[in-house]
Amino acid sequence: MKIVFHGANALTFFESFDTLLETPHELVTVSDTFDRAGDLEHYQTAEIIVGTHSRAEYPPTSAKLFQLPAAGYDGVHFPSLPEGCAVCNCFGHENAIAEYVMAALLARHVPLAEADRQLRQGDWHYWAGGPSGLRTELGAQRIGIVGHGHIGRTLAARALAFGMTVHVANRSPVSTPDYAATYGLADLTEMASHVDVLINTLPLSDGTAGIIGADVLNALGPEAIVMNVGRGPVVDEDALFEVLSTRKIGGAIIDTWYVYPTPDQPNPMPGHKPFHDLDNVTLTPHMSGWTNGTITRRQQAMARNIDRLARGESLEDRVC
Amino acid sequence: MKIVFHGANALTFFESFDTLLETPHELVTVSDTFDRAGDLEHYQTAEIIVGTHSRAEYPPTSAKLFQLPAAGYDGVHFPSLPEGCAVCNCFGHENAIAEYVMAALLARHVPLAEADRQLRQGDWHYWAGGPSGLRTELGAQRIGIVGHGHIGRTLAARALAFGMTVHVANRSPVSTPDYAATYGLADLTEMASHVDVLINTLPLSDGTAGIIGADVLNALGPEAIVMNVGRGPVVDEDALFEVLSTRKIGGAIIDTWYVYPTPDQPNPMPGHKPFHDLDNVTLTPHMSGWTNGTITRRQQAMARNIDRLARGESLEDRVC
Repeated sequence: MKIVFHGANALTFFESFDTLLETPHELVTVSDTFDRAGDLEHYQTAEIIVGTHSRAEYPPTSAKLFQLPAAGYDGVHFPSLPEGCAVCNCFGHENAIAEYVMAALLARHVPLAEADRQLRQGDWHYWAGGPSGLRTELGAQRIGIVGHGHIGRTLAARALAFGMTVHVANRSPVSTPDYAATYGLADLTEMASHVDVLINTLPLSDGTAGIIGADVLNALGPEAIVMNVGRGPVVDEDALFEVLSTRKIGGAIIDTWYVYPTPDQPNPMPGHKPFHDLDNVTLTPHMSGWTNGTITRRQQAMARNIDRLARGESLEDRVC
Repeated sequence: MKIVFHGANALTFFESFDTLLETPHELVTVSDTFDRAGDLEHYQTAEIIVGTHSRAEYPPTSAKLFQLPAAGYDGVHFPSLPEGCAVCNCFGHENAIAEYVMAALLARHVPLAEADRQLRQGDWHYWAGGPSGLRTELGAQRIGIVGHGHIGRTLAARALAFGMTVHVANRSPVSTPDYAATYGLADLTEMASHVDVLINTLPLSDGTAGIIGADVLNALGPEAIVMNVGRGPVVDEDALFEVLSTRKIGGAIIDTWYVYPTPDQPNPMPGHKPFHDLDNVTLTPHMSGWTNGTITRRQQAMARNIDRLARGESLEDRVC
């Protein structure tokens, strides 16, 4: 079975991948732009493509499985896939994203770096027993999680372990006795009025673009925090900049953005608005899911699917 | 019922305390050194003392309950208490300490401040998909918790929620199916060889001083981290400084110390050795349990005990 890893992103999943496969196989790497000799021929004769995108002008003519090493499949050109070709995505990033979220939230309550800097100068400001260094607890807060997929569920479990009050909004109904309340996606304004942290985990689609807009953001309290680890435009950019720059809310921790690097512009600021000038935002470059654990779990999931295809079994996380 | 809050530490628990009591009461605050008019008379006629310490030369002659607003009772002079006076301590700091620990551990895996600093300059170093910013996961690590009391249990629950492998050492046997392994306190060297993070939660007593010594520390791997949120001298100071300064282990996060401020020396460095010169240690000033949530939970526990005493019921967390 010929397996082609196409492009730089897929290449990060290549190392040791052969050790995970039961099926006899030929593994080939192909550049994003097919600029090496034989690249296109390998791509067009492969039964399995591992990659994040396909293009109409280079149809993967022999593919039986187009396997994404990621969750988002907006880069795949479905009409040019051969008939019967399955498309599968994969996850495995949820533990990493939940660690990013909990690290960012805990950092707002536990001033480790500042305490360390002071104590190295003999300053015991945060010493227990005095009022000067008294801090708050994350566990006393209410978190509102938008989206109850892999990320939302994994995050909720950790938030509950800290004693947080968990509110969840989701497209389809959620019934989990551990949650304080659940909402539909039309009721985000109502949810926002009940939480200290509002976090988007939703991907981008027609139904989610701008779903966290001015009404939702203005329903948050003056100390509330917004986080986005889903996709940038799910949170309306202008409305987010407005509530942050006017300090109507407490702050934001934003990982997924409105502007991304391109070959022509490799070092852009991440918004059309100057979020990078605000001191009440933590800005990170779409990194929340990017760990060695994510790579390992995705490699395992992709290898399982390839072995399933070889055995004629049904595939996991099939998109179409 | 006359209740005296004695000293500066007790005073931090005074505000709104009266609203928590069912029992009719008179609440009085008294200075540490009895230097205000009437201080000593109030202290000696109180049925209940709330305080962290007592002295032989000022016996609380009417006390029926000496209630500590903290866990440690090494400041109480037991022989000078009246016959039949109960001594109770209280906890309520375990959630706060678990948040400190998890915040400190997660911060070693998620480089938020550095990623924020870079992105504000257009540097997308940590962007998912490239090898440059790939990070590790806390959930893949093994934690060894020394002590399975309030702190140890509360921390273990959060570590398990992140998927960590949890090892526990305790004086009395522990049987919890969620733990990978349990040990007696004589087997800390064995436990150290199996963990990535070794954390002391034990208080100081004859049996615990120096229990984490050179043998235990040298059994840790070259990337392992030591934490101490129990009491400083449970970890042998010279041995700890040795493995850190020679970089035999990965680092340490130390909150409980060997040297503390005194009226004569209010700004000491926290060790007899120059830990403050090491770059592989996070130094914090015994702050891990100090939150508004700890104060609230301790106030509630102390008020419950006073009401129980008034009703003739048995007391919680009785030390003697």
